[in-house]
Amino acid sequence: MLSHEDNELLTRTGSGTPMGDLFRRYWIPALESGELPEPDCPPVRVTLLGEQLLAFRDTNGAIGLVDEFCPHRKVSLFFGLNENCGLRCAYHGWKFDTTGHCVDMPSEPPESNFKDKVTIKSYPCEERGGVIWTYMGPPELKPELPEQEWMLVPDSHRLVSRRLQECNYFQALEGGIDSSHVSILHAGSVLGLGVSKGKSKDLLAKDTSPKFEVAEEEYGLLIGAKRKANEEENYWRITQFLMPWYTMIPPFGGAPRGGHAWVPVDDDSCMTWSWSWRPDQPLTEQDMKRELSGLGLHLKLIEGTKRTIANKDNDYMIDREAQKNGLSTAGIIGVSAEDQAVQESQGTIADRSAERLGTSDAAIIKARRVVLNACKNLMNGIEPPGLNPETHRVRSASVLLPNNVAFQVGAQKHLHFTMEQLEHGMAEEEVV
Amino acid sequence: MLSHEDNELLTRTGSGTPMGDLFRRYWIPALESGELPEPDCPPVRVTLLGEQLLAFRDTNGAIGLVDEFCPHRKVSLFFGLNENCGLRCAYHGWKFDTTGHCVDMPSEPPESNFKDKVTIKSYPCEERGGVIWTYMGPPELKPELPEQEWMLVPDSHRLVSRRLQECNYFQALEGGIDSSHVSILHAGSVLGLGVSKGKSKDLLAKDTSPKFEVAEEEYGLLIGAKRKANEEENYWRITQFLMPWYTMIPPFGGAPRGGHAWVPVDDDSCMTWSWSWRPDQPLTEQDMKRELSGLGLHLKLIEGTKRTIANKDNDYMIDREAQKNGLSTAGIIGVSAEDQAVQESQGTIADRSAERLGTSDAAIIKARRVVLNACKNLMNGIEPPGLNPETHRVRSASVLLPNNVAFQVGAQKHLHFTMEQLEHGMAEEEVV
Amino acid sequence: MLSHEDNELLTRTGSGTPMGDLFRRYWIPALESGELPEPDCPPVRVTLLGEQLLAFRDTNGAIGLVDEFCPHRKVSLFFGLNENCGLRCAYHGWKFDTTGHCVDMPSEPPESNFKDKVTIKSYPCEERGGVIWTYMGPPELKPELPEQEWMLVPDSHRLVSRRLQECNYFQALEGGIDSSHVSILHAGSVLGLGVSKGKSKDLLAKDTSPKFEVAEEEYGLLIGAKRKANEEENYWRITQFLMPWYTMIPPFGGAPRGGHAWVPVDDDSCMTWSWSWRPDQPLTEQDMKRELSGLGLHLKLIEGTKRTIANKDNDYMIDREAQKNGLSTAGIIGVSAEDQAVQESQGTIADRSAERLGTSDAAIIKARRVVLNACKNLMNGIEPPGLNPETHRVRSASVLLPNNVAFQVGAQKHLHFTMEQLEHGMAEEEVV
Repeated sequence: MLSHEDNELLTRTGSGTPMGDLFRRYWIPALESGELPEPDCPPVRVTLLGEQLLAFRDTNGAIGLVDEFCPHRKVSLFFGLNENCGLRCAYHGWKFDTTGHCVDMPSEPPESNFKDKVTIKSYPCEERGGVIWTYMGPPELKPELPEQEWMLVPDSHRLVSRRLQECNYFQALEGGIDSSHVSILHAGSVLGLGVSKGKSKDLLAKDTSPKFEVAEEEYGLLIGAKRKANEEENYWRITQFLMPWYTMIPPFGGAPRGGHAWVPVDDDSCMTWSWSWRPDQPLTEQDMKRELSGLGLHLKLIEGTKRTIANKDNDYMIDREAQKNGLSTAGIIGVSAEDQAVQESQGTIADRSAERLGTSDAAIIKARRVVLNACKNLMNGIEPPGLNPETHRVRSASVLLPNNVAFQVGAQKHLHFTMEQLEHGMAEEEVV
Repeated sequence: MLSHEDNELLTRTGSGTPMGDLFRRYWIPALESGELPEPDCPPVRVTLLGEQLLAFRDTNGAIGLVDEFCPHRKVSLFFGLNENCGLRCAYHGWKFDTTGHCVDMPSEPPESNFKDKVTIKSYPCEERGGVIWTYMGPPELKPELPEQEWMLVPDSHRLVSRRLQECNYFQALEGGIDSSHVSILHAGSVLGLGVSKGKSKDLLAKDTSPKFEVAEEEYGLLIGAKRKANEEENYWRITQFLMPWYTMIPPFGGAPRGGHAWVPVDDDSCMTWSWSWRPDQPLTEQDMKRELSGLGLHLKLIEGTKRTIANKDNDYMIDREAQKNGLSTAGIIGVSAEDQAVQESQGTIADRSAERLGTSDAAIIKARRVVLNACKNLMNGIEPPGLNPETHRVRSASVLLPNNVAFQVGAQKHLHFTMEQLEHGMAEEEVV
Repeated sequence: MLSHEDNELLTRTGSGTPMGDLFRRYWIPALESGELPEPDCPPVRVTLLGEQLLAFRDTNGAIGLVDEFCPHRKVSLFFGLNENCGLRCAYHGWKFDTTGHCVDMPSEPPESNFKDKVTIKSYPCEERGGVIWTYMGPPELKPELPEQEWMLVPDSHRLVSRRLQECNYFQALEGGIDSSHVSILHAGSVLGLGVSKGKSKDLLAKDTSPKFEVAEEEYGLLIGAKRKANEEENYWRITQFLMPWYTMIPPFGGAPRGGHAWVPVDDDSCMTWSWSWRPDQPLTEQDMKRELSGLGLHLKLIEGTKRTIANKDNDYMIDREAQKNGLSTAGIIGVSAEDQAVQESQGTIADRSAERLGTSDAAIIKARRVVLNACKNLMNGIEPPGLNPETHRVRSASVLLPNNVAFQVGAQKHLHFTMEQLEHGMAEEEVV
């Protein structure tokens, strides 16, 4: 439960809001690299933290991310022409380069120096891990890109996608650290993630009320969800919440690893980023087939958009037969679609003042606190956590540990990676 | 004409509004019985008086009507599974029975008693007359179900349907007691109601300015609309307005009887309930064919919804040729579609501060007063009218009476029914 | 750049606004004559300056333009029947003639005189130039219809159409006097206007930063845009802005002449009127084919509506290949579609407080001033400019003039027409 004030603080991220100020201190996943496939390709509209922007790749391959609207008379540059190292407004031909400088202004006399006085809002971009990243904060405070495992493996080992979710980012994020719901909502569907053995599925079903142990770390939170496996052992699903919006899915035996970022588009919608990867080998043909089927993390989209085909307007194509037969708890096909359905059903901005939280919500309660504290701290001049890229070199885990062993001790070697390990490809044999 | 304040009072029925408080003292038609066809069938979303609810029929056939959203984290229970005597939330498995008790909470440890502290908002339901009724008021003040004729005849004698109307309930209700418009709007279409003789049609056309005589009764209003039939006789169409939203259509010779309830969904839309019945015999094959054709009270709906196929987005499929040819005054096919078109065209909430009412609006003026008075009285602690079920044993009438006979005297025997008469089947021979 | 206050003043035209008061002093193009093709045809909904109206042509051919809603109970008269010299409401049969008088009220007793007390809001209409015009101001101040060339030529010489544009009228109007953008936005598409020689196209491309000379005239503004043609000559494109919303396109050699009116529907949308005409001969088969193709001023519409097929929901069917190939600067097919795309992309109401205007915006800056001054003057009792019909007898021009000749002198004979010239058909041989 949150007060109305804290809920507002948590969920509003537009320009000038305290949470918006916090988020502008981090790198932000903006587009898939493949959305700007080549130099001088068409620009793409991107809204981030409430700001309407336009991304383009110039003749030299450099990425620009600029205000969608031309400073002259506020016409959308979406209709502009991307060529010769700049994006040219279709109305009067003002042309801007990727750094936001006006490099041509044909509507003014050649002798005019008005061009030199005009710039367009522009944010620096970098590409890594198949993602175009941007930084929307004060230039002098720009950190290094985070170093998450999926970003660092070869392209062949990874699949990345983004899709629009029609609710505030935080309730989507909450789903990403909520191990509890995996036993219920995904009971019928985790096999869609590519689980090759039924073991984790059985363990999840056996104990549906995990006990949470949550530790604050430099990067955010380390969250252990403990389930009784047998008389001697606990089944631990361990995940990290990395500031400001990353969550990692504890692995399922045999399946690719997975994770998410939940990035505010505006206060009423977010971009759900999904990545699937294998640390030690390329994604297999079967992995790709499964992921592209919509059964796993990645969903099928309406062509030319980032909206899912199964969406709230069609009740996510609910199949009551499948629900009755136990194939899907919600009658909705696919792990990510299940999440999207319940999260969007909370309303565009969940009202956290009227909840009834239980012990299984411990990680969520803590995550809200961490984000709110970071926000309030920044208002008091205290620097945000999780800016150090190396702190992102963590791994989620899914392990059996003896009853008397603390998860941070027993799973220690699973919870981090070194660059050396990464280069040699970490084996996944100990995953349940 | 109403003041802005009275119009607000009349049309706002959400939780906590004075009119909402009044309406929560009556039984409310919520769903057709057939919408929950069998035990453990899928739940159905129902919005009543601005409250978003979910209806389900449990394993034993009991009906539940509960808050659409799980108290835990406010996820919609629409995606829940209805089985083993309860509705289980798809997110974390919290399960509620028809009385609103939480009967399972798998996300909490078995030893937890949190479950016993959690309930969900729930309203009692009863089934009668092919309708699932609910009561949303203080439990200790729950009355008996009303005893209207259509509810009491055998199922074979009756057809019931509901459809969404995209305007406030009261302007829809006004149409139900407005005999005057029958001579104009329905001039071309009353035959669609199954009128076997043209007599009533001719009488309606002959005198288009009925004089109204309105009497306040225990159940609401008794309304006589008098038209000149010939030198010696008047043609009386007599209808009742029963609190809080029922209207009865005066019969047409040869046709089934008909009536409506106009139930607020929210302030901008209402559910129009229609019932057709024969007191003395099953509906004939021809009756059913006519009603299902959309020509009568019941309209064709977009599959899977309660929205009519002919709706405001397509101008009710207006046919200007049919209008020119006199087949339909508005060019709209079907009696109910005609009503819906003009009522919705008044705006979602009609502005009653700028009307020009005439003598033919006498019944409407009186009905507004009755409902507003009941509302204001309740605010002063005076109990609402029309709660006694027996007062609903009334019948509308359509009769010729000598000029010098008052309608309440001349039509007296037509205006009520006894349970004994009902059992033997009342003949309809005297209807014009 | 405008202050927020002036932007509000400029863009709000509803009943009771200062700009609304100004515009109600002028004749307003309401419908194409062909939209009311014959006596007693169906009525047509028209919203003007925020007022929802209904147009109909009565049995005698007279045009009525009345409040869309019946004064009785505010039902839309759109569903009414147009016959026997009046429009009859479908609900209770109240009937109104084109002057707004209630001529029949069948719901009231024949002896009642209520009918004589009821009128409906009604505006006078006239037809000229294929357009139904209305006047919504004080009756005693009604001026004569303007006398623009396209209105006065024979029907065979003219094509008129209107289409909905989903933005405020003024940013659309700004496009109409903005010669500068012709060199850029229309660089690839002016041939779509029917330019038979490439000369004007070459001249436009050669100098993309025209210098503006703007003179205030009785009718509004005379605007000269000067481009360097060669060492000895300037290429002048001369256009008029006529109060309150007319703009004229400087001719292109060989093509029909063209012009626009940008009429507020409500504050968020406007009706773009387009007229193409030849002063001296009927439009040719080729002219008609080109105009109906969507390449010129007139756009293809969604059947039964005034909305364009290429619209903001489909990004105006942008063709990035055509854009890359230089066939169209914006990748949008057709001169008018290009304009609509950029103008609507400014938002429903452009924010003029954050612009960066250059010297090429001189005409726009002046036009805003002229309209705002007329508005403020009227508030102080000073009569509006441009009400004298004869002042509208102007012509746009497209000419080469020696460097040392002022455009008002050099082009003088091209900038007006007399009724005598018109009767004999003005030749167009001197157009560039």
